[in-house]
Amino acid sequence: MYIQSSPISWGNKGKTISLNSPTELPKASHFLWNKNMVAQVNCRGYVISQFMQPEPAKYSHGPNLEAKTFIQPEQPFYTEHPGRFFYIKDHATGEVFSLPYEPMRKTLDSFVFNAEMSEVRWQIKHLSWRFDIIFNLDLETNLEYWSLDVKNSDDSERKLSIYTCFSIGYMSWMNQAATFKPELNTIVASSVTAYQKVEDYPTVKNLNDKTFLMSDKKATSWCCSFADFVGEGGLTQPDAIQHGVLPSKTVNYETPIAVLQHDVTLEKHANESLCFLFGPANNIEEISEIKSKCHLAYFNNVRAEYLNYVQQCVGNLHFDSPNVGLNHVVNYWLPRQAFYHGDVNRLSTDPQTRNYLQDAMGMIYLSPSVTRERLIFALTQQQANGELPDGILLTDEAELKYINQVPHADHNVWLSLVLLAYLEQTGDTSVLDEVVAYADKKSSGTVTEHVEKALDWLINNTDRNGLSLIAQGDWCDPMNMVGYKGKGVSSWLTFATAYAIKCWVKICDQFLPTYNAKKHSHYQTSMQYLNNAALNAFQSGKWFGRGITDDGRLFGTEKDAEGKMFLNAQSWAMLSGVTTIAEQPEALTQINQHLLTPYGYTMLAPSYTKMVEDVGRITQKSPGVSENGSVYNHAAIFYAYALFEQGLTDQAFDVLTRMIALPESGINRDQLPNFVPNYYRGAYFQFPDYAGRSSNLFNTGTISWLMRCVNEHLCGFKGLTNGVEISPQLPSDWQGFGFSRQYRGALFTVEIIRDANIEQQQTSCNGRALAQNRLLNIKPDTSYKIEIKLPYVARTQAKLCIIMGVSGSGKTAVAKSLASQCNSVFVDADDFHSEWAKKQMAQGIPLDDNYRDHWITKLSTYLTTLRCQKQNTVLAYSGLKQKHRERFRTLGLDVRYFNLKVSEPILKQRLQNRETHFFDPNLLASQLSSMEQITTDEQDVVHIDGTQPLEEVINSIKDLI
Amino acid sequence: MYIQSSPISWGNKGKTISLNSPTELPKASHFLWNKNMVAQVNCRGYVISQFMQPEPAKYSHGPNLEAKTFIQPEQPFYTEHPGRFFYIKDHATGEVFSLPYEPMRKTLDSFVFNAEMSEVRWQIKHLSWRFDIIFNLDLETNLEYWSLDVKNSDDSERKLSIYTCFSIGYMSWMNQAATFKPELNTIVASSVTAYQKVEDYPTVKNLNDKTFLMSDKKATSWCCSFADFVGEGGLTQPDAIQHGVLPSKTVNYETPIAVLQHDVTLEKHANESLCFLFGPANNIEEISEIKSKCHLAYFNNVRAEYLNYVQQCVGNLHFDSPNVGLNHVVNYWLPRQAFYHGDVNRLSTDPQTRNYLQDAMGMIYLSPSVTRERLIFALTQQQANGELPDGILLTDEAELKYINQVPHADHNVWLSLVLLAYLEQTGDTSVLDEVVAYADKKSSGTVTEHVEKALDWLINNTDRNGLSLIAQGDWCDPMNMVGYKGKGVSSWLTFATAYAIKCWVKICDQFLPTYNAKKHSHYQTSMQYLNNAALNAFQSGKWFGRGITDDGRLFGTEKDAEGKMFLNAQSWAMLSGVTTIAEQPEALTQINQHLLTPYGYTMLAPSYTKMVEDVGRITQKSPGVSENGSVYNHAAIFYAYALFEQGLTDQAFDVLTRMIALPESGINRDQLPNFVPNYYRGAYFQFPDYAGRSSNLFNTGTISWLMRCVNEHLCGFKGLTNGVEISPQLPSDWQGFGFSRQYRGALFTVEIIRDANIEQQQTSCNGRALAQNRLLNIKPDTSYKIEIKLPYVARTQAKLCIIMGVSGSGKTAVAKSLASQCNSVFVDADDFHSEWAKKQMAQGIPLDDNYRDHWITKLSTYLTTLRCQKQNTVLAYSGLKQKHRERFRTLGLDVRYFNLKVSEPILKQRLQNRETHFFDPNLLASQLSSMEQITTDEQDVVHIDGTQPLEEVINSIKDLI
Repeated sequence: MYIQSSPISWGNKGKTISLNSPTELPKASHFLWNKNMVAQVNCRGYVISQFMQPEPAKYSHGPNLEAKTFIQPEQPFYTEHPGRFFYIKDHATGEVFSLPYEPMRKTLDSFVFNAEMSEVRWQIKHLSWRFDIIFNLDLETNLEYWSLDVKNSDDSERKLSIYTCFSIGYMSWMNQAATFKPELNTIVASSVTAYQKVEDYPTVKNLNDKTFLMSDKKATSWCCSFADFVGEGGLTQPDAIQHGVLPSKTVNYETPIAVLQHDVTLEKHANESLCFLFGPANNIEEISEIKSKCHLAYFNNVRAEYLNYVQQCVGNLHFDSPNVGLNHVVNYWLPRQAFYHGDVNRLSTDPQTRNYLQDAMGMIYLSPSVTRERLIFALTQQQANGELPDGILLTDEAELKYINQVPHADHNVWLSLVLLAYLEQTGDTSVLDEVVAYADKKSSGTVTEHVEKALDWLINNTDRNGLSLIAQGDWCDPMNMVGYKGKGVSSWLTFATAYAIKCWVKICDQFLPTYNAKKHSHYQTSMQYLNNAALNAFQSGKWFGRGITDDGRLFGTEKDAEGKMFLNAQSWAMLSGVTTIAEQPEALTQINQHLLTPYGYTMLAPSYTKMVEDVGRITQKSPGVSENGSVYNHAAIFYAYALFEQGLTDQAFDVLTRMIALPESGINRDQLPNFVPNYYRGAYFQFPDYAGRSSNLFNTGTISWLMRCVNEHLCGFKGLTNGVEISPQLPSDWQGFGFSRQYRGALFTVEIIRDANIEQQQTSCNGRALAQNRLLNIKPDTSYKIEIKLPYVARTQAKLCIIMGVSGSGKTAVAKSLASQCNSVFVDADDFHSEWAKKQMAQGIPLDDNYRDHWITKLSTYLTTLRCQKQNTVLAYSGLKQKHRERFRTLGLDVRYFNLKVSEPILKQRLQNRETHFFDPNLLASQLSSMEQITTDEQDVVHIDGTQPLEEVINSIKDLI
Repeated sequence: MYIQSSPISWGNKGKTISLNSPTELPKASHFLWNKNMVAQVNCRGYVISQFMQPEPAKYSHGPNLEAKTFIQPEQPFYTEHPGRFFYIKDHATGEVFSLPYEPMRKTLDSFVFNAEMSEVRWQIKHLSWRFDIIFNLDLETNLEYWSLDVKNSDDSERKLSIYTCFSIGYMSWMNQAATFKPELNTIVASSVTAYQKVEDYPTVKNLNDKTFLMSDKKATSWCCSFADFVGEGGLTQPDAIQHGVLPSKTVNYETPIAVLQHDVTLEKHANESLCFLFGPANNIEEISEIKSKCHLAYFNNVRAEYLNYVQQCVGNLHFDSPNVGLNHVVNYWLPRQAFYHGDVNRLSTDPQTRNYLQDAMGMIYLSPSVTRERLIFALTQQQANGELPDGILLTDEAELKYINQVPHADHNVWLSLVLLAYLEQTGDTSVLDEVVAYADKKSSGTVTEHVEKALDWLINNTDRNGLSLIAQGDWCDPMNMVGYKGKGVSSWLTFATAYAIKCWVKICDQFLPTYNAKKHSHYQTSMQYLNNAALNAFQSGKWFGRGITDDGRLFGTEKDAEGKMFLNAQSWAMLSGVTTIAEQPEALTQINQHLLTPYGYTMLAPSYTKMVEDVGRITQKSPGVSENGSVYNHAAIFYAYALFEQGLTDQAFDVLTRMIALPESGINRDQLPNFVPNYYRGAYFQFPDYAGRSSNLFNTGTISWLMRCVNEHLCGFKGLTNGVEISPQLPSDWQGFGFSRQYRGALFTVEIIRDANIEQQQTSCNGRALAQNRLLNIKPDTSYKIEIKLPYVARTQAKLCIIMGVSGSGKTAVAKSLASQCNSVFVDADDFHSEWAKKQMAQGIPLDDNYRDHWITKLSTYLTTLRCQKQNTVLAYSGLKQKHRERFRTLGLDVRYFNLKVSEPILKQRLQNRETHFFDPNLLASQLSSMEQITTDEQDVVHIDGTQPLEEVINSIKDLI
């Protein structure tokens, strides 16, 4: 997971992300979408695409009968499928290779996979040929546009054959066939979606059951039969390509494939382009009509149009910070991902209400009228009793499906949050008075009334202790067995309800000056009541439990073997105001102790490895995956937002940047920085081999919150009714930065610098000082030049206290106890040993230097992560090697070593009394001999008598730090 | 599809079927089963297996998320899955190859795949190694038993590494993982079946979500990670095998695979066996308990036990005819397949009622008490109104699923048919008086009363014209839109109802001498009434239509462009007694004209290529596949049975043998003779490339009827209350044969010979002549030696009348008209041209000799098929080549040629007037020059003046034949 030099690079001022290897990040991918389809393109030539008819469907299938499934997190590609492959046969050498990489996987002279804002482009060179493959979509159809440009870079005429091979797969057990239509120069595969009941026929009848591959240039030959194409050679050495000319084979109830052959002769330095269209269709007439689109001029036109479409998302904010990679992401890639979510609702007909609202929230920076429209649309589906449904039905035919058939209790929460963000961004208070009908169509109310009803529903959806009932899930879908009997409650939901009320109170205070005082007081009181109830019920030791089950068990506490701590409960306790870091400084340490990893904060830890029947499905998910303790970015961004709100800017900024796969980060997550995935694998200590791996799934509620963090906190724009307060929160190592942004119709150009001579922020607009950093009465179509001076922040180095000593010296017990007494995270260096190494040690086999270096690297990465959180740490570590001790001194931490000295006979005795530890007592001799002398340069090493009682050892260390 | 020498051979006196190539019949397979599982084993190393928990489930999955599906007809195997592969690395040469063939597909020195009664065995030789791979099951668990014996055939010590690689695949999107348990020497993969609703948890909780691979010998190394095993080399060149030692890699939420490495060193001529167990499990304790089974002695014991189990089916009949292949099938393979169907009900918990009853019928020859028991069990699910349900629920938890949720109208039909067969076999009339409760559990009745109620339900389930209402299907499941509005009727069901009554009347006549006369007359009258109603309503031209739709349209007639004729309507009209061949000699010709192919009779023709909305789903199935016009053996065997009943023994016998893939047949159907598949592809004229290909699916209602044909007709055993009549029906070219069989507790040894001196059958028992060929008062535990003399049958040669002439000579019009006037099948030689050849001709390109030979071969095969049906035929054929004319003379037909002579100018004019024909007029010259002179040896050629009016041409030919 740790890489020396990144295969990823930026181009085109950050608008292009290039990957120069098909093997280093084999799952790296890009995605394209329009109103009817979405396609995820893997760098090696796999494409997972689905289109709406109106529910998501596929036209390129697996080789066996696929279960109905969406694009998945960690979408598995399997050998040879679902491919968009170009086999190339070079006539001069007879060599055959495949582009972009699969399925032949031959090493190519050079390879670049470019994720662009509006397309995917490969640039490949091999045997003095240059290939440019471009994939894009148009604005509304289900067509894949593929072009392959080949250039002869040689000085003489040469020939090649191109076999364009797109997967069609096993379309249906009922009927599937494919043939080539010469008049259309197109392979057309047909199928009938399987059904049995006569009442299903009308639906099946109208499905787009054809898949076609069309080319602009007349094909030399073709093949529709997977079996005849691959023969005994398989897709890696297809028989048909060995023969040279494809066998013109149709299929009838066999697995189809679409292969077209083009023979190309090119003079020296000449080039030629081939265009292909691939997609689903209803009938042959539809395909005939598409024929007119299959030429290069049309393709170029579509590329330009689609680029215009995607570029709509760019320009609200131009961010120019010292972190160049972050600038690119903030300026282009985040808006692009937010636009995908907000403009097409993740291509679902029944988005979950929470997703629908949060995705709409992301649009406040791109097109706030969309946010307003969607807020109001959601309210049309609110019951008259205030309850929002589990999903928002976008079409008349849509119905609640899958997870939306499971009752969740949180949907009402999001209304006031999104509304507040919308109002702060736009100042558009007219929305509050808009009258909207309820779902029953009989009654209606203003938006204000809708929100009040939503909040009252939440306030009433509580048990007799005032805690929020969870039903079969809250924000966390698979937490389905906490409250299914009707009693279980959720701490997160209780905090979230309080926070939703807090947001409404803020709306009332800011934007509704004449709001009814009695109601205001009702909400203030309710919020207080909820917070108090939560504080009483959920606090357990130094953190908050996650909920109380139907049977009255508080879980998510120190008592649990797995799922000890849940991030959301802690983040939202901060948001709701139940607690502050100032009041609970140890809370952060506990969060760092349990949830922090180099890939970000996990959603819970330890991940569950077996079913907990009063918690539910989440505990059955794979450990470290998805809700079961991955670095679930949606949860992590809530935490970042809460940290920003608490003024912990450095920590918040670290959480924020850690979820973006910046090439500069030195961490390989099998992910490009073109989007933030919904998760990275967690279970860092449980399954270290897989930890950090990206889901590569671009559907996530993370994005709108990430943009809020950037806009509200880094840029510091806090909207008021009649203006804006600008209070940027800069990471302490930034000496300044600038940005420009559109806000309420005006253009703000903001320059921020630190000034050693001031003690609090000073802000001027067009040279005029702003009181309270507020600019009031913003005029549209006006430019405001804002200059901000910020005081310097004293840098505090986090402390790393290393308790060193050989096995049996007591370092673990000392370190653990010391950490607990000094509000520090405890780290055991042994936890970073691999399973293999532990087995070696248990068998008495010493570890070699090479392995030890690797081990120290892992440990250092973790310590560095703690440093970024300004977290004081106590490390138990043998300290055998001088060079390893030296490495810890370079991590930017305030390091102190305490060497526990214990005589050999006592060590031996201690070790013999141990039973469970994996260390073989016979290894002691090896350790003692390996222990490299403390050199005179190592003045940070203090020797401590390790034979003293534990308390005394600790006290003597505490005296020194 | 036509092969020179078969790769299939018989061994072990017919109990072994050997295939000597992994590529010639790539889908050839065998199947094994027990009460809990079934496994289909492909010769190349793929295994599709499913087990009951209690519904069918898999433990070896696809690489992507599989749809829930059963073993399918023409089950597609896809690259590298689902495999049971053994990679072998020979240390001396470094060569790596895979056994039995996949996935490396290297040519092996020798290869034999043996389908045995109780196991599958490969014998493979390569690089002087000999490998014996055996796969079998035990009697009741879900374990796959695999053993690999390797022998060093060389004269010096050698080493090899064996990498046993079994597919586990994508187990679940929710949770999947795998690791190696050293204490069990076993790879254990775990998963959680995905679900979302809390109410599904109790079911999911108890599923066998583990898959394991266990070995008896300690593994040198192992790998559970598909990705790490294959690396960039893929399954055809796995990286891990290149490295030599597997990387001991566990997986967590990755695709698992089970690979174990064993390094073996063998002295010269030494051998070693490895044992493996593979299957599903619920938990690790279960797997631990299985460990004790994992050794060779246990395996050998299981093999012996399982052989005993399967051999139960053998022995009732020992058939010794001149057709050796048929003997093997009748003696071993048919009983085996019948046993599978009857003993385990195709491993379903809700078998369709018609399958359940017909499968029980097959057991009358193996274990008639099972038939009796199942008949009665089915009756417990009969409604008090007489109606049988769509499926029989075998367990308390079972429910009607899939197709059983679609209302079918035929289930009551099968009761009296099966009962009659049972009574004729056993004479056990006590069954008729058994009292059985109805499904309501309130009322009950004797079996006689149950049958009467069933028949009365059928009699009443008719429209006002007395025709049987079809609802959403009869025997033909996908005929779902004929009668879903409540009006459509089925000819087959009307005939079948009449036949069911006929069987009941026969039971009454034979086995119920005191049956109520009024009831007897009621059934007689009802049968007559149904037959008359059917005759009036369904007869259309020379055959019977298949039904009348809800909107009153008679379909399955000459008026239909597709689905002109359905076989079942014709067969069952014969069975019901509506018509006889004697009355309707032209019916057979029409059946041959429309439905006959070299692979057997198709169920309908032409196959539908587009939806017919008043017929339904059958028309949407792939043309030539399954019910849409395949050679659906269940329908074909009904026809054979009807032909036997009509005394058309030669024709019936041909139908019967044509459905068994005998190696001697010279036809490659990608099928071994170890079982009769449910279909062979039809659409012979529409999709000739695929016609004849086997479904390789062993689930079929064919088997019990095939055994009835053998027992009742070929052997001629017709059971009476108090004895048996023995009237064998021999194909005319058999000069005699013998068989022995168990019947009602006695042993019959029967010898049959033809005698030129007799005119009707003479039968003796132990030397004593039997009146009416009947042996009465059979005593159990007695041996009867039966000698039968049959008269010779004059062999009649079918006539082939060939109308020859070049394009434009009028041969097609003449041949067509002549065929119609002479009750002959019309054959157009042009129909056997490939699409490619037709295009060549249309472009004016003459066909070469090589192609023409191929064309004549196809045509000859078809003509031979007609000959076997004793069908007179008229062929329109250019007759250009003398050698081709000569070939037709060798087909065993009574051939006459009529050469239509027309002068070149008239020919040209005729051709110019044509529009639609694919022949290019410019080709005429080529044809005229190609026309080889009629030699003096060709005395069967008559020259006819082709310029006469059509009627005169025909009359002049008719005068001559």
